[in-house]
Amino acid sequence: MPSILSKITDPRQLKKLSLRELDQLAAELRERIIDTCAANGGHLAPSLGVVELTIALHRVFDSPLDKIVWDVGHQAYAHKLLTGRNEVFGTLRTLGGISGFPKRAESPHDCFDVGHSSTSISAALGCAVGRDLKGERNKVLAVIGDGSMTGGIAYEGLNHAGELNKDLVVILNDNEMSISPNVGAMSTLLSRTITSEFVHKAKKDLEAFLESMPMFGRSALKVAKRAEESLKGLFTPGMLFEAFGFEYIGPIDGHDIPLLLQTFEAVKRFDDAVLIHVITKKGKGYPAAEANPSLFHGVGPFEKATGKVLKGKGGAASYTGIFGEAIRKLARDNEKIVAVSAAMPDGTGLSPFAKEFPTRFFDVGIAEQHAVTFAAGLAAEGFRPVVALYSSFLQRGFDQLCHDVCLQELPVLFAIDRAGVVGNDGPTHHGVFDLSYLRQLPGLTVMAPKDENELQHMLFTALNLDGPAAVRYPRGNGFGVPIDQIFKELPVGKGELVRKGKDGAIIAIGTMVQAAVEAAEELAKEGVELSVMNARFVKPIDRDLIIQLCGTGMLFTLEDNVLQGGFGTAVLEVLEEEGIIGVKVTRLGYPDSYVEQGEQAELKAAYGLDVPGVVKSVRKARGAAAA
Amino acid sequence: MPSILSKITDPRQLKKLSLRELDQLAAELRERIIDTCAANGGHLAPSLGVVELTIALHRVFDSPLDKIVWDVGHQAYAHKLLTGRNEVFGTLRTLGGISGFPKRAESPHDCFDVGHSSTSISAALGCAVGRDLKGERNKVLAVIGDGSMTGGIAYEGLNHAGELNKDLVVILNDNEMSISPNVGAMSTLLSRTITSEFVHKAKKDLEAFLESMPMFGRSALKVAKRAEESLKGLFTPGMLFEAFGFEYIGPIDGHDIPLLLQTFEAVKRFDDAVLIHVITKKGKGYPAAEANPSLFHGVGPFEKATGKVLKGKGGAASYTGIFGEAIRKLARDNEKIVAVSAAMPDGTGLSPFAKEFPTRFFDVGIAEQHAVTFAAGLAAEGFRPVVALYSSFLQRGFDQLCHDVCLQELPVLFAIDRAGVVGNDGPTHHGVFDLSYLRQLPGLTVMAPKDENELQHMLFTALNLDGPAAVRYPRGNGFGVPIDQIFKELPVGKGELVRKGKDGAIIAIGTMVQAAVEAAEELAKEGVELSVMNARFVKPIDRDLIIQLCGTGMLFTLEDNVLQGGFGTAVLEVLEEEGIIGVKVTRLGYPDSYVEQGEQAELKAAYGLDVPGVVKSVRKARGAAAA
Repeated sequence: MPSILSKITDPRQLKKLSLRELDQLAAELRERIIDTCAANGGHLAPSLGVVELTIALHRVFDSPLDKIVWDVGHQAYAHKLLTGRNEVFGTLRTLGGISGFPKRAESPHDCFDVGHSSTSISAALGCAVGRDLKGERNKVLAVIGDGSMTGGIAYEGLNHAGELNKDLVVILNDNEMSISPNVGAMSTLLSRTITSEFVHKAKKDLEAFLESMPMFGRSALKVAKRAEESLKGLFTPGMLFEAFGFEYIGPIDGHDIPLLLQTFEAVKRFDDAVLIHVITKKGKGYPAAEANPSLFHGVGPFEKATGKVLKGKGGAASYTGIFGEAIRKLARDNEKIVAVSAAMPDGTGLSPFAKEFPTRFFDVGIAEQHAVTFAAGLAAEGFRPVVALYSSFLQRGFDQLCHDVCLQELPVLFAIDRAGVVGNDGPTHHGVFDLSYLRQLPGLTVMAPKDENELQHMLFTALNLDGPAAVRYPRGNGFGVPIDQIFKELPVGKGELVRKGKDGAIIAIGTMVQAAVEAAEELAKEGVELSVMNARFVKPIDRDLIIQLCGTGMLFTLEDNVLQGGFGTAVLEVLEEEGIIGVKVTRLGYPDSYVEQGEQAELKAAYGLDVPGVVKSVRKARGAAAA
Repeated sequence: MPSILSKITDPRQLKKLSLRELDQLAAELRERIIDTCAANGGHLAPSLGVVELTIALHRVFDSPLDKIVWDVGHQAYAHKLLTGRNEVFGTLRTLGGISGFPKRAESPHDCFDVGHSSTSISAALGCAVGRDLKGERNKVLAVIGDGSMTGGIAYEGLNHAGELNKDLVVILNDNEMSISPNVGAMSTLLSRTITSEFVHKAKKDLEAFLESMPMFGRSALKVAKRAEESLKGLFTPGMLFEAFGFEYIGPIDGHDIPLLLQTFEAVKRFDDAVLIHVITKKGKGYPAAEANPSLFHGVGPFEKATGKVLKGKGGAASYTGIFGEAIRKLARDNEKIVAVSAAMPDGTGLSPFAKEFPTRFFDVGIAEQHAVTFAAGLAAEGFRPVVALYSSFLQRGFDQLCHDVCLQELPVLFAIDRAGVVGNDGPTHHGVFDLSYLRQLPGLTVMAPKDENELQHMLFTALNLDGPAAVRYPRGNGFGVPIDQIFKELPVGKGELVRKGKDGAIIAIGTMVQAAVEAAEELAKEGVELSVMNARFVKPIDRDLIIQLCGTGMLFTLEDNVLQGGFGTAVLEVLEEEGIIGVKVTRLGYPDSYVEQGEQAELKAAYGLDVPGVVKSVRKARGAAAA
């Protein structure tokens, strides 16, 4: 059969295809998505689940005139392939290539940038209100997964949208999963499907209710109460969304193209807020992904034939793994340690903890705000909660961190994974702001380990503190250093002088210490002897050691965070507070712009944060000083 | 009658009072609350609404063993009066006095600090889970208003709580108001009370449904669908909370003490998650507050007999008022300007805008996350949304600001009121972090006006920019400067030299410029001539002018923000980036700790940010330099 996909340059072409051709197109899309993810890694399972849905959307609606707002956006691969990006799809998630998420700069068919969860209803409502103010008539659609529905902003958007009752279509893509299996009362509710047992119970309850109606001596209110009691058990998702002011359609099979087309055609004629409940299977069409949708949610390169995930370079343990192991060991000795995850027990390394301590582990769903305040409540009861989140997702809990944790000086430990650049997920996922937003909060101890062994000691140290603490560490493997069998308490607010030299000093934080040491060794070959400080603590910062290093006359700070307000800035603040003038400081870190996607190493190199980059910066600063 | 309240030092004493004495106590509590608020200002209307509820809670439950978690906490005055703080209640909200919000440091009966909305279910769930892990048996109760239920974290908490089904009581204090009249689909739903019309419709619908049951040729599914259709209209709040896994009780009259006691006694024996829906009247018992609960939500000192609010010092227009007026004028010339408020149309000054442009104004409820992303959606459609929020509440939207607005470079204008110290609301409400958390975001223009006239020019300037912008300004009255009739576009990234002197320079931001000028004038009397720079832009900052001022040899930075990562730090970064060494810089701002409550002027004085404080810092720095 000749390829259909390869001829599609515009989604309007879908309107001319037969149902049979649409089926073939679905198969071709899956093939292309699987092949590309096998090579580049990516969000395979979510994208496979919505192939038919995407085809039906583009067949019935008229993108870019009609706006399709994808929630999270990791499921938009078929959308990209059908909107003129088939040829370049091989560059998915690579440096300079197309993004793994919708991006307005990339295509007019991507109407809203995304990467974090649960924003689509809010964004789509903004688009719908804007359309009405302009007097235009296009449709606006939000496609949101059931997992994303656990995020508070989705509810805020739903609540407002229901009130405004604009011409807005919300497609609830229900795969009974968020990233890991779903949690929360809403999830139980969504799975309440209509069965014949349901009908039987309905009939029985309602008959009982009707029988009660003619009785004398009962007030209308009491009868109504009785009615309500009878009806409670009959509650369905449709009634929920109806109550929020949406028309409800569903649940329908999200892999049945004719049914989807028929439904969307009908909805096209509505002009109220409508929610279509679509049931899909995550990973659909690729057996390995269907069998293990959590693993294939976001996956690195894998072998297509077997679904075997290819190992990364080297066998060193990941920071995530070391964290998970350490926290499990620590919890064995301290029953006050409990752990909280926001839909990421695997991603954050907490799954082994959850298995060993099921009553002390809490997956709250994609609900970072609640995760933080829930942990604060536990801490107020004398527990030592460990909240494990990705750096960029903790941004969602910034107010709770400030208002619920730090203000009360509660001993919550934030284990912040995916700090620094995360790689191919790109700007929405890089954790390059955390040192800046954490450092401003009073009473929070902020640490970053130089390697995976120091990570475990920092976790131990943090759990011995009286107040809140954060330990941030990068995505990926450690350096393969030996792992101590006994935890060590690190002196709080003290850095470590890892190298001594008289010609200047590099003050580095976290895993950037390694680059600092290597750069110093490189420069030593030229006769330039630098001290290297492993800062360990961003807050409280080691003033004494910094003051001491000022004696070298020239400081460099090195961090995998943005420069504005970050670690290097903290060093500048120390110098100002200590009244030290005349010391030349050069801060190295990410600049004041969003960092693009690419391999971690590529990005570090691009911003001069690898060994050659640091060496170059030192040479340049010394040259300027000499001139 | 002898006073009952004056004898209560512990809530256990309530258990011995008769119903009649409880009534008298309610009256005394109201009197005390009204008197104190008349003198000190405070959250009068919310606290008056829950007097009976608070009495009943403390009569039935055993605080502090049982935990009562107040949402927002502005309704906790009766709670404070009943838990040993009657004698000191006159110090409410004053420097060194008791807080207007629950505070653990103040009393064991305050089990969780609060000030921001919608956190109570999350915190209480944390307490309940902690209790169960410890094997204890106390009750945990969250008291949350219907307005707070619009916040996404409340839903996140509800969703998790329903799943865990812990022994947890949520009291929904439904006064059909948040701060201003309530919005959102949820609010419509809550007001759906059970009437005889409801019963009539129920009967009709259900009969029709039952009649359809015996028909042949219908699948069970179709019958069930029909059933669902019939039932949709019967949806009640009870069904909603039931669906979320809570037992539902209510609605009950929140001013009927015997009914409250009876209900709470019953609930005390439950060990499931229960939601009690209580209807109260905001401002209950004080006619002026009942008539205008929005005005008396949080109010300054007023005349008790008439309810007439006493004017603040001087007649200068407030920043809030100038903002509201300016944005209205600007909107007349630009139909793309729309405005978004999160339950604060009065507090942010947007009410006149809402009146003049009802279709271009959106009150989204207490839902800051949605406010930001909704505005981003509008901006993506070509509009110029103005999101008016209080500084400390915008912390809730930090991720959305980063991920939805700045990343897409969307031209959303954030009008940030209550920046700097707000006064008596204290640490939860001070807006002293915004310069730090805003400044780190790429592409965001951040401004602060030196006075109310400059505020309007900054709003105009921001609305002419291509990207996102924030203008932050304090609570309270301006300086009374003349207001230009024509808007001026300020050169972006350029400060203003307002005073020239050779002995040093004060680089000030926002309304701190005034203190800088006055301090400079004071110092001029001693022969010390300082330059003063009105920075205007925190980002992009005026490098050229800063470099020029380095020529004076000594810089002072002055801001009403925390020092860590704030405006002064931005100046340090400029010096580092420009390679300027040898200039002594002294940063003045709030230190690395939460600022307590007190009058704005008192707090500024306490932290050396008033004129004498600045003068003193300059003298000290000059003395050190001379030594």
